[in-house]
Order: sequence, then structure tokens, then C-alpha cells
Amino acid sequence: MNETVSSTLPVEDARIYPRGGLDVLSRTEVARLRDASSGGMHELLRRCALAVLTSGSANDDPRAARDLYPSFDIQVAQQDRGVRIDLKNAPAMAFVDGEIIRGVAELLFAVVRDLAWTAIELGPEYAEDLESSAGITDAVFGLLRNARVLRPADPNLVVCWGGHSISREEYIYTKQVGYELGLRGLDICTGCGPGAMKGPMKGATIAHAKQRKRTNRYIGITEPGIIAAESPNPIVNELVIMPDIEKRLEAFVRLAHGIIVFPGGVGTAEEILYLLGILLREENAGLPFPLILTGPTIAAPYFEQIDRFLRLTLGEAATSRYQIVIGDPAAVAKKMSTGIRKVREARLAHKDSFYFNWGIDVPLEFQQPFVPTHAAMAALDLHHGRAPSALAADLRRAFSGIVAGNVKEEGMRRIEAHGPFEIHGAADMMQALDGLLRAFVQQRRMKIAGEYRPCYRVVA
Amino acid sequence: MNETVSSTLPVEDARIYPRGGLDVLSRTEVARLRDASSGGMHELLRRCALAVLTSGSANDDPRAARDLYPSFDIQVAQQDRGVRIDLKNAPAMAFVDGEIIRGVAELLFAVVRDLAWTAIELGPEYAEDLESSAGITDAVFGLLRNARVLRPADPNLVVCWGGHSISREEYIYTKQVGYELGLRGLDICTGCGPGAMKGPMKGATIAHAKQRKRTNRYIGITEPGIIAAESPNPIVNELVIMPDIEKRLEAFVRLAHGIIVFPGGVGTAEEILYLLGILLREENAGLPFPLILTGPTIAAPYFEQIDRFLRLTLGEAATSRYQIVIGDPAAVAKKMSTGIRKVREARLAHKDSFYFNWGIDVPLEFQQPFVPTHAAMAALDLHHGRAPSALAADLRRAFSGIVAGNVKEEGMRRIEAHGPFEIHGAADMMQALDGLLRAFVQQRRMKIAGEYRPCYRVVA
Amino acid sequence: MNETVSSTLPVEDARIYPRGGLDVLSRTEVARLRDASSGGMHELLRRCALAVLTSGSANDDPRAARDLYPSFDIQVAQQDRGVRIDLKNAPAMAFVDGEIIRGVAELLFAVVRDLAWTAIELGPEYAEDLESSAGITDAVFGLLRNARVLRPADPNLVVCWGGHSISREEYIYTKQVGYELGLRGLDICTGCGPGAMKGPMKGATIAHAKQRKRTNRYIGITEPGIIAAESPNPIVNELVIMPDIEKRLEAFVRLAHGIIVFPGGVGTAEEILYLLGILLREENAGLPFPLILTGPTIAAPYFEQIDRFLRLTLGEAATSRYQIVIGDPAAVAKKMSTGIRKVREARLAHKDSFYFNWGIDVPLEFQQPFVPTHAAMAALDLHHGRAPSALAADLRRAFSGIVAGNVKEEGMRRIEAHGPFEIHGAADMMQALDGLLRAFVQQRRMKIAGEYRPCYRVVA
Amino acid sequence: MNETVSSTLPVEDARIYPRGGLDVLSRTEVARLRDASSGGMHELLRRCALAVLTSGSANDDPRAARDLYPSFDIQVAQQDRGVRIDLKNAPAMAFVDGEIIRGVAELLFAVVRDLAWTAIELGPEYAEDLESSAGITDAVFGLLRNARVLRPADPNLVVCWGGHSISREEYIYTKQVGYELGLRGLDICTGCGPGAMKGPMKGATIAHAKQRKRTNRYIGITEPGIIAAESPNPIVNELVIMPDIEKRLEAFVRLAHGIIVFPGGVGTAEEILYLLGILLREENAGLPFPLILTGPTIAAPYFEQIDRFLRLTLGEAATSRYQIVIGDPAAVAKKMSTGIRKVREARLAHKDSFYFNWGIDVPLEFQQPFVPTHAAMAALDLHHGRAPSALAADLRRAFSGIVAGNVKEEGMRRIEAHGPFEIHGAADMMQALDGLLRAFVQQRRMKIAGEYRPCYRVVA
Repeated sequence: MNETVSSTLPVEDARIYPRGGLDVLSRTEVARLRDASSGGMHELLRRCALAVLTSGSANDDPRAARDLYPSFDIQVAQQDRGVRIDLKNAPAMAFVDGEIIRGVAELLFAVVRDLAWTAIELGPEYAEDLESSAGITDAVFGLLRNARVLRPADPNLVVCWGGHSISREEYIYTKQVGYELGLRGLDICTGCGPGAMKGPMKGATIAHAKQRKRTNRYIGITEPGIIAAESPNPIVNELVIMPDIEKRLEAFVRLAHGIIVFPGGVGTAEEILYLLGILLREENAGLPFPLILTGPTIAAPYFEQIDRFLRLTLGEAATSRYQIVIGDPAAVAKKMSTGIRKVREARLAHKDSFYFNWGIDVPLEFQQPFVPTHAAMAALDLHHGRAPSALAADLRRAFSGIVAGNVKEEGMRRIEAHGPFEIHGAADMMQALDGLLRAFVQQRRMKIAGEYRPCYRVVA
Repeated sequence: MNETVSSTLPVEDARIYPRGGLDVLSRTEVARLRDASSGGMHELLRRCALAVLTSGSANDDPRAARDLYPSFDIQVAQQDRGVRIDLKNAPAMAFVDGEIIRGVAELLFAVVRDLAWTAIELGPEYAEDLESSAGITDAVFGLLRNARVLRPADPNLVVCWGGHSISREEYIYTKQVGYELGLRGLDICTGCGPGAMKGPMKGATIAHAKQRKRTNRYIGITEPGIIAAESPNPIVNELVIMPDIEKRLEAFVRLAHGIIVFPGGVGTAEEILYLLGILLREENAGLPFPLILTGPTIAAPYFEQIDRFLRLTLGEAATSRYQIVIGDPAAVAKKMSTGIRKVREARLAHKDSFYFNWGIDVPLEFQQPFVPTHAAMAALDLHHGRAPSALAADLRRAFSGIVAGNVKEEGMRRIEAHGPFEIHGAADMMQALDGLLRAFVQQRRMKIAGEYRPCYRVVA
Repeated sequence: MNETVSSTLPVEDARIYPRGGLDVLSRTEVARLRDASSGGMHELLRRCALAVLTSGSANDDPRAARDLYPSFDIQVAQQDRGVRIDLKNAPAMAFVDGEIIRGVAELLFAVVRDLAWTAIELGPEYAEDLESSAGITDAVFGLLRNARVLRPADPNLVVCWGGHSISREEYIYTKQVGYELGLRGLDICTGCGPGAMKGPMKGATIAHAKQRKRTNRYIGITEPGIIAAESPNPIVNELVIMPDIEKRLEAFVRLAHGIIVFPGGVGTAEEILYLLGILLREENAGLPFPLILTGPTIAAPYFEQIDRFLRLTLGEAATSRYQIVIGDPAAVAKKMSTGIRKVREARLAHKDSFYFNWGIDVPLEFQQPFVPTHAAMAALDLHHGRAPSALAADLRRAFSGIVAGNVKEEGMRRIEAHGPFEIHGAADMMQALDGLLRAFVQQRRMKIAGEYRPCYRVVA
Repeated sequence: MNETVSSTLPVEDARIYPRGGLDVLSRTEVARLRDASSGGMHELLRRCALAVLTSGSANDDPRAARDLYPSFDIQVAQQDRGVRIDLKNAPAMAFVDGEIIRGVAELLFAVVRDLAWTAIELGPEYAEDLESSAGITDAVFGLLRNARVLRPADPNLVVCWGGHSISREEYIYTKQVGYELGLRGLDICTGCGPGAMKGPMKGATIAHAKQRKRTNRYIGITEPGIIAAESPNPIVNELVIMPDIEKRLEAFVRLAHGIIVFPGGVGTAEEILYLLGILLREENAGLPFPLILTGPTIAAPYFEQIDRFLRLTLGEAATSRYQIVIGDPAAVAKKMSTGIRKVREARLAHKDSFYFNWGIDVPLEFQQPFVPTHAAMAALDLHHGRAPSALAADLRRAFSGIVAGNVKEEGMRRIEAHGPFEIHGAADMMQALDGLLRAFVQQRRMKIAGEYRPCYRVVA
């Protein structure tokens, strides 16, 4: 069944069968799944599968997985009215004595399952459904349910956000927080990958073992654009691949019974703005949602800066929505535990489900992707006096655009072609934003070579 | 939670919540379910629910359940993003000290589940899908999968057919056969109700207990037209409500790993013709399908007559598709056990699934209902020389029409209005058919008052 | 593995291995087990094993199982440091297609387990331990624990007593009571065998299935002297073989959370006196112990007579310890359910275990067997004015002696040799006793041919 | 339930109840358990309990746990006919928000269980049983069975030996080997504590998670003399406390399906000699027993030296009993996997159990403790020409004595009082022994301050 062909790295061939999940399919469904995995989706499938097959590998390898396994291929085949995955020249590291590691096989079927669901259920013929906020939420719900992530159980899921490239001290801190969460019976959901995405899961694993907790959930939620760079760490036992960044963010928010934010870079800052933008809406005023920003003592200045920025832009009221805890993992876990108890009560009171936060209002502007053109950037309105939620939405966009202009290929091309973005904003806000970005660069949380040069200018 | 209101029989009110099955629903789905259970479907739901709630009651009560519980009502409500069933003035016999019997609650949710699935997935907007043979089979598959009846496990499901109104000796025999099947680890599927539908399950229950078999399946497959008359016996632990007689028959054939036919009346004879009509098709020539006709010694003449009729009409070749075993329950179980082993091998060889017989060819003429008008009856072609399968299809229709003309309300009206059906058939066949019906009447397998009078005449 | 040799009835040979229970044994233990099953214990083992292997057979067969299977033999062998049972010429009825029925194999290992435990742990070297009341109770506890019957779970075990030879109407009533108990989640313990020992288990089985109760206990407690006559019915899934009648009675009383008495013969009456004798002790005054005497309407006179006898002998106060319910299975189950809730509270309050009634005081006189010699009978003191508990103990003995004198081989020989027993008793008590026995004979609950003739005379 | 009193470190009080294990006890047993835990055994219990309660703490704390928690106390109490553990001033690190960590509670009950079993079953009245080899083996078996460590399952238990104080590189290597073992479905048993005792369990935990292996065994076998110094690491989920070093060694050998030896100090060397002494006996000649000595590249010289010493003393033949693998974790796991398959076949062929190696011959001289007096040391016979097994036994003793003379309190006192041991041995052997010890000191595997000075002299 397995042969090794000459390649850059050792590889194996294999045929894999699902256990339990994908196995009761109709003839039509198997055919559509096979079709979906060929055609345009094939390259996507190949890329995601490779990320899973190299999960746990050294992350700082300069060459991409694609270069290391150029002849790798994957096919979905029909077998006994079920599906079968055929691998060719797959990374040998995913195998033990010729047998694929079972957890890797499970993640592989998760990839097929989610890409196929997206291709079939969110295909062009359903485009209309995705134009409304409720339609998008239903799509998020449908994908999560199909992935069997929605389970009726007591609220205990903590989503952890934070950077992939953090210092060793910060990494150890995320493990300690995970450990304290695990001791209190809490499960972990992150965005997959190393750093703050892996630490809490590792810590929780040890704590769950000590508490003899048997059914533990280490949920990883990713999307095709980042899975290659941040392949699922080996602890993830439930993997979901959302179609895009916005649906991934909504999945986090609807699944979470509480969120912890560790130090991170630009992405993390954007996530904070996304979440606060939603929580500061009047519609969500009474909704309990534990949100804790935390890190070791050395991360204190980082959170002070973030805090100052949020106060300045969104006002003092915004601070009621989050707590900052420095250097105290047990306190973080206790606060989260208490917060989740309140979430439980609120869900019961509002007859909302435990496994999906239907009650939180996520408006269309947070669900649709923002494309940072010069026009879109110029249309932002970053002035004091606006509703904090609306301002947060625009700030997130500004943030996103500035990042794009600085480091993303397409954004940089736009700046080169048309000059810096013109942004209409209050001077103090723009200055604060600038300071934040500079600090990220300095703390090596953003990969910018040389001196930081703003890609925008403020227009009165 | 429960009150008793004055009524013909003691009643209770209750609110029931599902366990496990129906609980992860989207807002839209709950709304559709609630809508589906009101409107036109409400009376259907009420009738099926009442059958379940009175399951196990004395069957010979002259008054129908509907008369006994005139104020009974059922509503499907939305609760915590899940469903809840509200019962009003429900039969007290379904309750113990104010709590509904759990098995009854499960069957109740099965009713809601299947009626809702049918209303939603087989609604008018999907009418086109049901015009092809493959489309109908997919509908059967979809409903069974949604009911979680399709499970990947070794073939061991024996479908038992036979009459509801059988003699005590015959009933005891069905129990003995069930017992011998159960000793050999086989599970039972029947059409719900008393008599030959209940005996095999009772016998198997005792045998399963003796063999310490833990996960036992007692599947009942019914349809709205008969559930009231033949309410699920208490042993059924998986109930499926198919939309109509034809889909119910297809469900039996696709689920079965073997079929046993006990003595019965008209319905049983029709079932035999339906199955032989399919098995005698060239497409199904190589397909193993154990089919055993069996009863106690007193039933020997019954099966001799059936056998003669089949030889005369479908030819000697037809006999290769069934075995007749008289008065030997252990032999029946052994033959079935051996036959199912061959089914297992064939499924493996053809890469067909164990839980759904995709491989058997069921053509459209066996899937679409036959409406016995004078024109339809006159169009039948009951002569020697036709392909046995085609002849079986027409014989089944003739049979169905004659029964309708004799005992069904609409059929009798047709005969009164337009005179007897004219059937084009060979004299010997028609005579044999006539003899069969007379025997059923004589053996009290058919409820015909007074002397039997044919409702047809043969046209040369 | 299995051959059939010529015999009175079809037989098979087999080698059987335990599942789970008897498998982690030391070399010494296996050797002792093998030794224990040879020598004096071998005939006992053979007899008990035969009872299990013919369980469920027609009970009224005139020839004993031993005559039907004269060449049957059983050996316990050592295998892989575990045990193996070798059967020779065993009843074919215990096998299906050459494989022993798993439940039968389990009961067979229960026989080996309990006989070996008794031989090893209650052997001559421990005789001293059995001289005190506490020592006997520890022996009962030890055997039950070794049989894994003691399990920490909520109180729900109802012991059912009553006759093996009861009318069809009474049998159906025991099934109905069992059904109502089962609907309320209660488990059943009886003395094995047919009649009132089987009915409640059958009824409960159906009810447990309807309530989807998965772990059901049908405990049979027997002893070597009666197992042959009353072989375990097929439903028993936990079998215990106590060393003698007295330990069996103590096992019932210590395991029960409540006891139901159906109509029965002499044995049943003795059981009632045994239990009341214990319950009327001052030491047990505050102890809740639900005790219900029940039967169908036709059994009303039976219980009236019993009731009168108890009032006359033990006084009106005795009636506070039992309730009589006629013809109302649901009421019996409701009362039992309520009573068991009180037992639960009392156990919690007294920090007593749920699985073994340490709190009830069973004095030595109820633990040691009574041998009815003329001297022993003459020493009884059956007069009014004694403490009810003491009188009950002597009444039970008188009862036991009279029965022996009338129907038991040894007792009858004693009467023939030495004339009738002389009993010192109040005339009215003796008359009532006499009346009770006559009624049992008349109602065919006792097998006495011809006219009943007392074997005792009252001495002023 | 929990209060904190002033102490050196934060402490809590608690009452703990067992789950499942210790709960069905007779009155007598509970009383004996309570008694056993008071009196002489109380200090032992207190010490072992403290080790468990501080498991996972920083190991290099200069003060002993006893100094840190001077007011800690533990009592075993009777509750509901079961046991309860009362803790006073217990280390707060074992609690989370006032609740004891469940795994810690489990280990605590393991301590009570094993100490009580030893006190009761191996008490003075059974001293005679422990004088024979078979008697000692039965004691080892009895304790392991009572601890529920003996389970009928396929052979997959790898015992890992090695030092507690190893270099970081060596520690990482033990994790990698554990990881590769875990990937192949193997479970781990070690001696508890840090270093080579913890690494393989940590590695296997990650691998088991990746392979979705659910029931994983991380067995720790310790004894009262070392548990305080080497408290069970947090991963251990089955803890056994053997009464002494010799029974602990026998437990390892009887449980193991294979043994891996990582670099270690004196203790590890003794373990190798113990095992080879047994394996080189003629009685064990045909017995497969995979034994692999392994470490990272830097450990190569260590194993070369061990290997040279073994060849010199026990002869070339001894090398057939072990393999040395340097720097290849996957190869170690593959060889072990293959070796265990052979063990499985041999056990089947010899009808020996999988869970306890009855077949291996462990003679009394390896079961009885060696007390290194001058007389005992002078009686050793360390010359070429003896049977390797006998020589190994004496070498182990010599080794043990020399170590005692160098570093153990009692041994050092003996040397001071009576001068160096006089050993009758071949010069080359003694030199090699000397070299080995010097190397251990140099590699910091033995804690000897200053220059190493032999405590013995060779007598021709």
C-alpha cells in the first residue's frame, strides 16, 4: 500500500478510509464530493491537505511545504458507497511504519468534509443566501454543525487569540493559562498553528489529564488562506476550515463562551477591534461575554498601549467590556470560570442554545470582507463623536488597510501606484494608531524589514 | 405539568423534550418544523401521535383511538433553539406517575422527525426529483438516514412480513422463529402492529437477552395510512414513518439482508408478488437475497396454495427465489443465517454498503402507486409468455385492484358505478387468483362479510 | 469442539472460557478452584451445572434432568493461568449451532464461582467464623461481593417472593406487577424458577425496554438444595448460589430495598414469618422496610387468612409492618416506589450503604438452621404474651417442623418412629395454623395426596 | 469544607471520597483499614500522601516536603460503610478553587489502598508465606491485582528505566523515544519521578493523542523508601506502592513486555545487573524478553562502558540478551514493537497470561534484600568461571555494597568502624567496577562531593 518515491523528502502513498463520520452517503453525494475535490477545488484541497500532513513539523523551515513535497497529490475516490482518500507522495512524517497516524487521517477527512461542504452548500447557486446577515450566520452554523462541532453540553469553551510569533516567556505563560483553564474543566479553541494558538492547548492537556477529564475538546478553526502558514498543531482534535476570514471570526464569536487575548501582532489587534465593535453595539448591551487580555509581566507595556488606544478611540465605556490581567494565570482562569457561569445563566434565561451564540448581534458590516482600496480608505470616518461600535468598525478597516499597505502584496502595489492612502481622521487617533504599529515592529511582532514608514496621510 | 381533564378516557398534559436527536437545529429549521406541524400536516401528526401514545393497548377495542381521545392535541414548539412537543389531553396510558414513558417519547419524536422531513424535503418544490427511479430511491435513502436507521454494521437485519390477524398457533410460531433468529444474533424489522409483526420481535428479545446481546434493533417501518390501525408494538425501538406504501416497501427491500414471510392475508400476498417481481428481473439475477416462506404445520396448505399460484403464473423458475419451510423455526433461522453470510460476501465483492442495498434494481413501475381504475385494470396483461417480472408487476396490480373492488371504499364505489372490472387474462391464472382470495376469506385472513363475490370478469 | 454422543436426549461437548470475571487468578487460586471442583464438590457442581444448562426447559417433565442426561459431566481446568470449563454430553438445548448460549455460559461460571468461593472461604478451617451472627453476615456479604452483586447505585431492588406453582391468573398478575415496577425503574430479585419467581422479571423486562432502561438487573438467588427443582429462568442475568437456605434468606433481606409477597405455599408463609420476626424486633423498630402482600382478586381470601393468622399470633401491631393490596398492580408499584424513597433517606441518614442493609438486625436464631426433632418441637413456646419477635421465631420453627412432619422424608420418618410432635401452644394459635395448612392443600399450593392429617398434637 | 491555616506554604483541609475503587467494603475491612492507617503505619501514610500531594512541584526545592508542610495530617475515616480521607493542612497546590485535583485524589486512594493491603495481607501473621520464592511472587501478584493493574489485554507495556538526574539532551531523547513508542500504541511503566521516569510518559501522551488512543496507561511503580524523593509525576494514572525495592523490581519484570534502559546512575546499573542475572539463568533461556539500552549520541560512551563491563564479567553470551541503540528513537520503538510481538507469541504458546509473566524464573536470591555487612561482602565470589547468572547476582550485591559504603549513611558508618570491605574478586573485574563508578561521579550521575575513594580492597 505504501511506496516511497524519490523526492525532496521521504514520502509515502496511502489509501485512507474514514471512521464514522463521512460514511453514510448517498450515491449522489459521493459523486458530488468527488467532483468537488477535482476541478478548481483540487489545488485548494492539495494545499490544505499538505498543511495537515506536515502538522507538527518544524515551523521555521525556510522552504514552503509545497516546495518540499512537489509531487504530492490527493484524490477523493468512491468506495463502497463511501469515500476513500488516495495520497501520492505524501510526507512520510505523517506515517508510522507505513500506517498513517490516525489523528492526521481524521484532520484530513475534516479538510475534505469542510471544503466539500463549502463547495456544495455555498456554491454559486446559493449566492443570494449569503447577501443577508442572517444568511451568512446560517452558513456559519451549517458548516459548524456539519463538522459536528455543535454539541449540547454545558458552556465551557474558551477561545484563545494571540500571536504565532511570541517570545518564549510569553509562550510559557500561555501554557500556564491553559493549564489553569484545564484544571477548571474548560476546553480550548484557537486558530491553529504555533505560539499562543498552541500553548493553551498544551497546558490544558496536562491539566485535563490530572483532572481525569476524558472528553476534551481542542478545537482549531482556520481558513484556506492561513492553514498552510499555520498548520494545525498536533493537539487539535477537532478541525474546522471556514471559507474565509470573516466567517472564521464569526465562528469564534458564536462558539466562544469567553475569549482570552494573549499578546500578538496586527492580527490580534484587529481581532480585539472586531470583537469590541460587536460588543459595543446597543443590541449586545446586556449580553455577558467574558473578555480577558492577559500576558506575563513583560507584556504589561503591550497591553497598556492597547488599553490607551482603546480608551482614546472608543471611549472609557469600552473598558467595561474587557479586563486586563498581568502575570496571574490562576486569576485569569478564575475570572473566566465565573464569567462563563454568567453566560450559562443568560443563555438559560434567554432560551438560547449553549453551543451557538444566536443571541449576539453581528451586523453585515462585520461579516462582509473589507477590500482596502484608496476609495474605501478615504471613505472611513475616524473622528471622535461617532458611536463607539461604528467607529470600531471603521478603525478595524483602517487598521486592516494600513497593514495591507505596509506588508501585503496587493496593498503595497496600490500604494506604489497611487501614493499613500488619504484618511479622514482625528489627529490624535491617527497618531495613536501609528504608535501602535511602530511598537509592533519594534517588538518583532510584525515582520517589517528596515524602518517603519507610514503608508497613509491624514486629511483634515 | 400534568393535569387530567374530563374525557372519555383518562388523559394527561405534558411537555416533552428530545434526547440527542432533534436538538441541533438552526433558527430556520425550528421555524419550518413548527410550521410544518401546523397547517395541513397537523391532522396527520395528531393521528400518528395518537397511534404511538396508545401503542400496546388492546387492539380489538371497537372504537377508534380518535373517538376515545377526542380532545387530544399536539403542538411542536420552539425551545432554546430546539424543539419541544406539547401534548394536551393525551392518553394517560402513555404516562407513569405523571411522566411520559421514555420509549413512547422517543417514538413521538420519530413521528415529528419523519413527518417534518417529508414535508420539508419532499415538498412540492422537489416534485421533479421524485419523477425518476433514482430520485425516489434517494428520497427513501434520505428519510432513512435522517431517521438514523442506516448504520455501518455487519449484515444482520431480517425483515419479517405476515398478517396482523393470525391464529394463536401461528403467532406462537412467529415468536419461536424470532427466538431462533435472536439466538443467532439477528435483528428484526417489521411493519409495526400486532400478530406476525410483533411475534418475531418478542421472541428475539428473549433470545437477545440470553445471548447477552446489548444493542438490539427492533425496527418498525410504517406509513401514515396504516399507523392508526397498526400502532407500533412496545418493543419497536426504531420507528420510521415512510410517506407512502410504495416507499415503505422499497425501504423494507433496501434495508433487509433477508426476508421471512409468515402466513398473512391479501397484503402479504401482494408483498410476495412485489418482491418476486423485483427479484425475477434480469438486473437482479445474480443478487443473493434470502427469502423464506414459513409457518407452523397448520399453515402448510396456505403455503402450498401460494406456491402453486406462483408456479402457475411466474413459472417454475420463480421457485428458485424462495424456500418454503414448515414447522421448523431452527431450520428457518439457520437458512437465514447462511443466506445472510452470502449477502455479506456479495456486498463486499460489489463494494456495496451493508446498510442500504443500492445494488438491487427497483424499477419505476414498482415505485409509483397503482390506482385501480377501470381503465387501468383493463390495461393489465395477465397472459402466459410474458417476462415473469413484468407479469408479476401486473399481477400485483390486478391483485391490488381486485382487493380494492372487494373491500376498499373507493374501489367498491367504482364497481357499483361502472360494473365489474374487465381483465384481460389467461383463464387458469384468473381462476387461481380467485381460489386464493376465497381461501383467504375462508381462513378469516380477510374481513369480508357474507359470501365472496368476484368484482371482475375475464375478457378473452 | 462439539460432538454428539448417543444419549437419552441430544447432547454436546464444549470448552468454555469466562469473559471478564474469573480471569485474573493466581496459580494457587486456579489450583484450588480445580481441586475444589473435584472431590466431594464435584457431584454438587454437576447437579447445579445441569440445572443451569436446562434452564428454560419445560418444568413439568416427569423425569429429573439427571435421568435425562446420565452421562453429563463437567470439569474445571486450568488454562493460561485462568480457568476453563469442560463439558461432556451437555444438554444440546444450551447450544445454538454448536456454540453455547452466552447467558448460559455466564450462569455456569457463576455456579463455579460461588461453589468454589464457598468451598475455599467457608471451608472447615473457617468454621469458627461462622459461629457468631456477625461472622455469618460477613460470609453472606463476602459471597455477594465476590459475585459482584453489591454495586453502589441508588436503591431500586425489589425482592419478589411467592409460589412456583400458582394459577395462570396469579401468574399474569405477577407479570403485571413486574411491569409496573419496571416502568418505575425498579429492578427485580427473586429466588429463581418459574411462577411468581419468573412473572415479575418478564413484566419488568418489557417495561424496562419501554423506558429505555439499559442496565437492568434480574437477580436470582438460589441454593444447592433447590436449584435443580427450580432452575434459573432465562431472564436471570445475575445468579448467586448461597450455601444454604438461611444464608439465602439473609441475602434477600440484606439486598432488598423492599419486598413483595405474591400468593404461595408453605415456603412463602415461612418467608413472611421469617421477615416479620426480624422486623418486629425492637432493634429494627425505626427501620423503614416496605413489605407488600399482593395478588389478584381471586387471591384475596388467601391473604385474608394470612392476615388473620398474623394478627392472632403476633398481635395487631404486626400489621403495621405490611400492607395488603388486592388486584391493583400500579398501586403496588407506587407504594413500593414511595417506600424505597424512604429507605434511601434512612440509609443516608444512618450512613449505611445502599447495596447492603448492614443496619437491619438479624439475630443468630434466624441465621442458624432449625432441625425439627421431637425434642426441638417440644421446646417451642407458642403462647400469647411473648414478645412478637420471639414468638414469630418459634412459630416459624413450628411451621417448618409441621411441614417436615407432613411432607419431608426425614420428618415423616420421625413421626412414624416416635408418633406425632407434642407442641406446647395456645389452642387458638394451633387451630389457626391447622386451618392455614388445610387451605394450602385445598388450593393445591402444597402437594399432599389424600386427606390432610396433622402430625402434631397440642399439649396444654 | 476547606480552610487555610497559617503555615509555611498555603494549605487546605478537605474530605475526599473514593470513586469506584475502595467502596464495597465490609464493616471489618473498613475497621482494619482505619486501624492500619493509624499506629505505626500512620507516619508512612503521611509521608507517601505528602509525596502525592506535592507531585509535580519543583523538584529542586532544597527543603523537604515535610519541612514545608509541618502541620499536614491525614486520617482514614469510616463513612457509609466505605472509606473517607480527611486531610488537614494539605498543600494548596493540590487544590483548584477549594476542590482537590481528581487525579491527585486518585493517587491518594492508591496510597491508602496499597499501604493497607500490605499491612493487612503481608502482616506478621503471614510471614511464613514470604519465605518461599513462590510466596513472594504471590504477594507481588496479589498487590498488583488488588491495585487493578493486571488487565487482560494485548501485550503493550514497556517499562522504562534510567536516571532521575539526566542532562537536558538526554531528557529530550527519552521524550522522543516515548513519542515513538506511543505512536506504535505502546503504554509506559516507570518508577515515578522526574528525568527518564517522566520523559517517556510525556512523549507517549502526545503520540497517544495523535493516534486517538483513548485508554492509555502511565503506570508508576514506587516504594515507600523513594516516593518522597521521587514523587509521582502528573501523568501517572496508575500508581502502585510496592512494600520494598525487591518486590518493586519483581513487579517491573513480571509486568513488562519489554524494558528500555536510558542512561542513569548507580541504581540503573544495578537494575541492569538484576535483570541480566535473571535472564541469564538456564530456566529463562528460551524466554523472549526485549531489552534495549539507548540514549542520544552524547550517551554513547556511557553505554560502551556498560557494555564492556558486562562482556568482561558475564561473558560475550550476555550480550545476546540486550541491544544498544544510539540516537535513533524510531529504531528503538520498532525493535521494541517487534520484540513484544514475539513475547505475545511465546505467551500464547506457553499458555501464560499476558498481564503477568508467570513464566520467568526469579529465584529467591533476587527476591530477598541484600544487607551489605563486612561478612556478607567477604562472602561474595567475584571470579571468572562461575555461571553468569550466579556471578551477576554477586556482582549486583557487590555493587550494592560498594554504593552503600560510599554514599549511604549506614554503609559509611560500617566502613568507618571496620575499615574497607574485603572482596574476593578477580582483579580485572574489580578494576572495571571501579572505573564504572568513577565515570558516574564524573558525569554527575552520582552525588559524591570531592574525589572518589574506593571503600573496598581486593583480596586475592
